[in-house]
Amino acid sequence: MRDHPAVILLIEDDETHAMLIIRAFEDVKINHKIHWMCSADDALDYLLQKGKFANPRDCPRPDLILLDLRLSVVDGHEVLRAIKGSQKLKALPVVILTTSRNNADIAKAYSNYANSYLVKPMGSEMFREMMNDLGNYWLKWNIK
Amino acid sequence: MRDHPAVILLIEDDETHAMLIIRAFEDVKINHKIHWMCSADDALDYLLQKGKFANPRDCPRPDLILLDLRLSVVDGHEVLRAIKGSQKLKALPVVILTTSRNNADIAKAYSNYANSYLVKPMGSEMFREMMNDLGNYWLKWNIK
Repeated sequence: MRDHPAVILLIEDDETHAMLIIRAFEDVKINHKIHWMCSADDALDYLLQKGKFANPRDCPRPDLILLDLRLSVVDGHEVLRAIKGSQKLKALPVVILTTSRNNADIAKAYSNYANSYLVKPMGSEMFREMMNDLGNYWLKWNIK
Repeated sequence: MRDHPAVILLIEDDETHAMLIIRAFEDVKINHKIHWMCSADDALDYLLQKGKFANPRDCPRPDLILLDLRLSVVDGHEVLRAIKGSQKLKALPVVILTTSRNNADIAKAYSNYANSYLVKPMGSEMFREMMNDLGNYWLKWNIK
């Protein structure tokens, strides 16, 4: 059993999608806290505890990273490459959570060692079911 | 919806553990087939469709690999390194499924880009629950 809430870093620049994810996670029966970042720069600063994210108490190392690919300025592939290329960060599980079913995106993500790749389903019922299974699997069973 | 059974490659040299995993997967409500290999050599031949595993119809590329670490002769870490070092194989999701909670094993597995690391629980009820969540997540939602 966890003695502190599981920490999820959500990297998503679409506010509607971010709210849908955060709301769907309310059904996950595991104590957790979601830190939402809407840019790649903020996400990397958070992970490296730099700048406004320098306090490790406020910005704990996440148990799970949910990463959108279509971010403005620096895209999700670059964030993934930065995480998996860093000795300090590479053990963090990164789940791609995107609308893209494009084969080039899927191949590029796995080539950069994404832990898993999920496509956001259109229906809200299926979306909540996916978020529930996702939360259960990574927060309850995965060890890191 | 899948038009063919999901394929799982189970790499496990302990017959009792392999049987427990195969039986627990009977509860997973997704059409699947498990190919069980009890040595690293056979597993790599299967993945590379070599020797007695040369027929792609009998030995389809798996949707998920479940890998024990404590194999005789060549260990699981070597198998993981071979998979994640191969351009042909690196996109295959590899879930470590082991009795080891050893920090060195966990760090080494993630350093070699394991997709996920699970410790086999002792209780049979919890074991079946874990296998169910594992099957649901990787076979139902993960895209590769």
